Amino acid sequence: MRTAELCALRSLRLVEAPVPEPGPGQVLVRVKAVGICGSDLHDFSEGRIGDQECKYPMVLGHEPVGEVVQTGPGVSGWAPKDRVAVEPALYCYHCEFCLTGRHNICANIRFMSSPEDPGFFREFVSVPAGNLLPLPEGLGFREGTLFEPLAVVLHSMKFAALRPRETVAVFGAGPIGLLTILTVKMSGAGRVWAVEPVAERREMARAAGADAVIDPHAVEAWREILRDTGRRGVDVAIDCAAREDSTNQCIRAARNGGRVVITGIPVEIQLPLEFHVARRKELVLYNVRRSCHDSEAALQMLAEAPARFGAFVTHALPLERAQAAFEMLEHYSDGAGKVVLEP
Amino acid sequence: MRTAELCALRSLRLVEAPVPEPGPGQVLVRVKAVGICGSDLHDFSEGRIGDQECKYPMVLGHEPVGEVVQTGPGVSGWAPKDRVAVEPALYCYHCEFCLTGRHNICANIRFMSSPEDPGFFREFVSVPAGNLLPLPEGLGFREGTLFEPLAVVLHSMKFAALRPRETVAVFGAGPIGLLTILTVKMSGAGRVWAVEPVAERREMARAAGADAVIDPHAVEAWREILRDTGRRGVDVAIDCAAREDSTNQCIRAARNGGRVVITGIPVEIQLPLEFHVARRKELVLYNVRRSCHDSEAALQMLAEAPARFGAFVTHALPLERAQAAFEMLEHYSDGAGKVVLEP
Amino acid sequence: MRTAELCALRSLRLVEAPVPEPGPGQVLVRVKAVGICGSDLHDFSEGRIGDQECKYPMVLGHEPVGEVVQTGPGVSGWAPKDRVAVEPALYCYHCEFCLTGRHNICANIRFMSSPEDPGFFREFVSVPAGNLLPLPEGLGFREGTLFEPLAVVLHSMKFAALRPRETVAVFGAGPIGLLTILTVKMSGAGRVWAVEPVAERREMARAAGADAVIDPHAVEAWREILRDTGRRGVDVAIDCAAREDSTNQCIRAARNGGRVVITGIPVEIQLPLEFHVARRKELVLYNVRRSCHDSEAALQMLAEAPARFGAFVTHALPLERAQAAFEMLEHYSDGAGKVVLEP
Amino acid sequence: MRTAELCALRSLRLVEAPVPEPGPGQVLVRVKAVGICGSDLHDFSEGRIGDQECKYPMVLGHEPVGEVVQTGPGVSGWAPKDRVAVEPALYCYHCEFCLTGRHNICANIRFMSSPEDPGFFREFVSVPAGNLLPLPEGLGFREGTLFEPLAVVLHSMKFAALRPRETVAVFGAGPIGLLTILTVKMSGAGRVWAVEPVAERREMARAAGADAVIDPHAVEAWREILRDTGRRGVDVAIDCAAREDSTNQCIRAARNGGRVVITGIPVEIQLPLEFHVARRKELVLYNVRRSCHDSEAALQMLAEAPARFGAFVTHALPLERAQAAFEMLEHYSDGAGKVVLEP
Repeated sequence: MRTAELCALRSLRLVEAPVPEPGPGQVLVRVKAVGICGSDLHDFSEGRIGDQECKYPMVLGHEPVGEVVQTGPGVSGWAPKDRVAVEPALYCYHCEFCLTGRHNICANIRFMSSPEDPGFFREFVSVPAGNLLPLPEGLGFREGTLFEPLAVVLHSMKFAALRPRETVAVFGAGPIGLLTILTVKMSGAGRVWAVEPVAERREMARAAGADAVIDPHAVEAWREILRDTGRRGVDVAIDCAAREDSTNQCIRAARNGGRVVITGIPVEIQLPLEFHVARRKELVLYNVRRSCHDSEAALQMLAEAPARFGAFVTHALPLERAQAAFEMLEHYSDGAGKVVLEP
Repeated sequence: MRTAELCALRSLRLVEAPVPEPGPGQVLVRVKAVGICGSDLHDFSEGRIGDQECKYPMVLGHEPVGEVVQTGPGVSGWAPKDRVAVEPALYCYHCEFCLTGRHNICANIRFMSSPEDPGFFREFVSVPAGNLLPLPEGLGFREGTLFEPLAVVLHSMKFAALRPRETVAVFGAGPIGLLTILTVKMSGAGRVWAVEPVAERREMARAAGADAVIDPHAVEAWREILRDTGRRGVDVAIDCAAREDSTNQCIRAARNGGRVVITGIPVEIQLPLEFHVARRKELVLYNVRRSCHDSEAALQMLAEAPARFGAFVTHALPLERAQAAFEMLEHYSDGAGKVVLEP
Repeated sequence: MRTAELCALRSLRLVEAPVPEPGPGQVLVRVKAVGICGSDLHDFSEGRIGDQECKYPMVLGHEPVGEVVQTGPGVSGWAPKDRVAVEPALYCYHCEFCLTGRHNICANIRFMSSPEDPGFFREFVSVPAGNLLPLPEGLGFREGTLFEPLAVVLHSMKFAALRPRETVAVFGAGPIGLLTILTVKMSGAGRVWAVEPVAERREMARAAGADAVIDPHAVEAWREILRDTGRRGVDVAIDCAAREDSTNQCIRAARNGGRVVITGIPVEIQLPLEFHVARRKELVLYNVRRSCHDSEAALQMLAEAPARFGAFVTHALPLERAQAAFEMLEHYSDGAGKVVLEP
Repeated sequence: MRTAELCALRSLRLVEAPVPEPGPGQVLVRVKAVGICGSDLHDFSEGRIGDQECKYPMVLGHEPVGEVVQTGPGVSGWAPKDRVAVEPALYCYHCEFCLTGRHNICANIRFMSSPEDPGFFREFVSVPAGNLLPLPEGLGFREGTLFEPLAVVLHSMKFAALRPRETVAVFGAGPIGLLTILTVKMSGAGRVWAVEPVAERREMARAAGADAVIDPHAVEAWREILRDTGRRGVDVAIDCAAREDSTNQCIRAARNGGRVVITGIPVEIQLPLEFHVARRKELVLYNVRRSCHDSEAALQMLAEAPARFGAFVTHALPLERAQAAFEMLEHYSDGAGKVVLEP
């Protein structure tokens, strides 16, 4: 089978590899589509996610859907041709964090898209049966890949703890930002602001439900939001931008006692944070790591409005065009929203 | 009457001023003792607290206790010679933040120790009757001044949300740090680490209940804490240091899913924060601003153990030695813990 | 002016009374419409709300909207003809419960619709200016009365703390139940069940967004819900029924670790509760009392979808038909949803 | 080996049974001491716990400590003579409740002391290695048995969410009540009331730290508590009584917005609850089921103050006197606190 390997900074190559046998408790899955995540892009462009460095070669990709090919010994409940989404994280289930329901920060976590565990930019994978979820009827593979970023957004909602009519500012309208906008609106949010420098993405933000969009290259976004709210600020500011000073923008845009939710992954190792502002407002800053048992709810949401979500997937390319797909995302060119690879 | 005015950077002077008349609803109080807070020291040494600049001349001091001298029109419930603590904040009671019980971030808050509202480094003040609390019997004036910093610590406990046996690291063992150590131990904490560069203060931290003390100039504190905890980290890390990189030390010392409570006020306008570490651990960062209706509980705690708390007050100086008191604190000299002025 | 007085059990009469002068800080309001609440019906039919007995004569009604007629001394910001909603509760703002933002359980609360403070079933009232809220443009008086029950529902949402896709069972589809159904759906709820014996109200429940309706006289509702959910039960069960055993039905219908929110007011003084079931599931039972600063958000919600909400107001009668209105509600006859009086 | 079987209502008998072989992943433990829980007493005296009926014969007992005798295949980390506490619950680790950290309400939970899974009133048991915890040095077997009820109390503290200086009323001063009193005092509680009809237990409550004790047969407890608190009531009322109307007493004794934590298991299937009082105060009622990963913290607490806790264990009897032990508890005779069997 073919595998797209990251073999150096900004360099993907296709290699041949044997189809992995499904071991006991495992299922062999043919990957039909897998989204490219912002964290994949960090690895590609910077050779690291924050202080976690790549080890070449490695296989990225952790937003996979596909079809069951074969079940390994001891597996029941799955059959060939079953359409599935694959949860990319592996938990120990017995460390103190798993025991408190926080499997996403499991002390022994493994993640299929890291130096140690290859990801899904390949044709076939063998994964534990427990990591499979049925892809609902009527939900296509392309849109189905959104289950993983949407799960992250649903997880972030546990921290946002939105109440009806609360106002929200979303910084960044890439896939995570767009799904955040859509989710907060579906959750009863009042006025929602989207801050995004790319014009096409601002349009998508509007379509996703944003009441107002702001180009941060044209105006200072937090000032605009304070002006719109009579200097009050928003109840919740969500950082999906992962660029420059978006966390500080959140701090400045939030109301007294507001919540700042940091969903995106910044490029910088350190962020110079305006703590005096955060302190005077007594803000709470929530750091979000991936998701935690949110994939099933995400799949339900997608299945109820596949067209609405499908609009976020702007490009689908075959595996051999992986390098081009990443380069397109690097430049946010061609109006790229979510880009999906189809092995 | 005499008033100690901050008239320039690092410069206090004694001036004469008329005794203020108690207006309707007000009470004239003779200030018997008033503590020097770390935020007073920021104003003295840096001419600002973060981005809030001093306007000279201004009167600092917001940890006051004293005696009622005279009540203004319409005041009942107080009589001359009553021993009182004075809450230094003034709320509007009707903004949205007051209506949600968060008076400390009142949209119209005033604070008696700011450029607009003079503080308590003077012999007499007239304050709203509603700001007075009875000083419990058996609690002296010197120790009584601790009600205000202890209220801040009790407020911070709402965010720390400590459960029995949880482990805590306290960075900084100045007055706020010492009161934090003592309060978490009284609240059922398990092992508590105190991190403090000044040797005398480390001794005080031990006396306050710290199970281990660390000199951050001798070792890297977070590494030491991770080593002590088998690489797990602490449940709650509380930043009472307000110096250098203590917030990052908290982030590094906290366990996965831990809480970081920022009680101290940093010198720097911006802090370069290690968000990648915070994100991987999915930490929550709580910013604490002053206190919120915690003074009564603080006074009760002080009254139950006046000697234990009294040990934190290492120096009491008359008002005319205000300049010397601040200079002593600036250099943490003479083993200074809490320093109190007695007008 | 005319006032509808409750003068004995099940007996309202119209009496003449002088128009009240607006005192200092007060505003004279012409009542244009006022809804009949289930608690009014308790007073009418049972002579008490639980253990709080009526004292005759008393004036009920606490869901009022109207027009400003005249402002008293010291009032600014309001002018004759201003369209307003009137918050019926009076708080002290300084007791410990007000200081923690829980004004609805103020130790000194007064409520305009109780034996001591007359309600709004009359032509004119004088109320503190602070109790007025602007009625948004485009929102009629009839629908406007829903601001008060909707505020109660929004308040109950603080306890329900709904997360996207969570399932909900609502017991009772009177006005509170209908507004609850609509609000949870607008807040991102997944599947919602409505349990209601009156056929017309079940239809209204469907229109409000319920995915399934159950007639509790035809089947045992909790069994049906457990069957529908594969024996799991719902995340949140909300008791808006205030009849018979609805709280126990909630306990039986909730999933392990679920939340039971009791919004309705039961007729009985005591409820024989199935604590063994509640204990095995480790349920939390939230008791809801009125609302707490939720009227503004309620008015916004109404203004965004006046037609949708307006459908709940099935009858509007003049003040002189108050007796008939209550009798209609007593028998849930004529497909009565919300019934409004128009003085 | 000998086993004490419950063979009929109020009837225990000693039978011989083979020593169970430790299977794969299991450990054979010699039971050295096992406490008698209130729920064991329910089974003994009433033939049921609420609506869960006994099936005879069954083996009770779920507060066990002992020594490792032999490890089964695949077990590492334990050796003969290791002193251990044994967690009596068996979880599936993969149901939705386990995945959210609420293993105590696991959909597939099994409990070693139920009709299906025999308990620990016997000389030897074979249990999964994962259920063992090391008994800390210096902690004797007798006191060690308290780890299980103390874990329940620590679990209940998650709901009590006590803040420093909050006041607490504890209804019932049996073992659970006494451990609750001690734990809330160690957690920074302010004034604590204990309500208990048995004089010896009131003395033990005082020794455990209660500031006031009330005999509910002499006075109406909730009235006394309201009187003591100036009609305010307590912040948290904890029902450890499991008798008569203690839950209603909690409701009446709690302050507005207070928390009622129901730790005890009532005899009655249904409790006639005063919801009108609960509603007016907007109380939250927390139902507590056993514990959830609290045993390790409990063992630490016991090890730090073995003498203090040991005072609660008033009687230790050999297994052959099980019938006498239960009868003593039934009548609360001989000043019985916690009674332990030593097989």
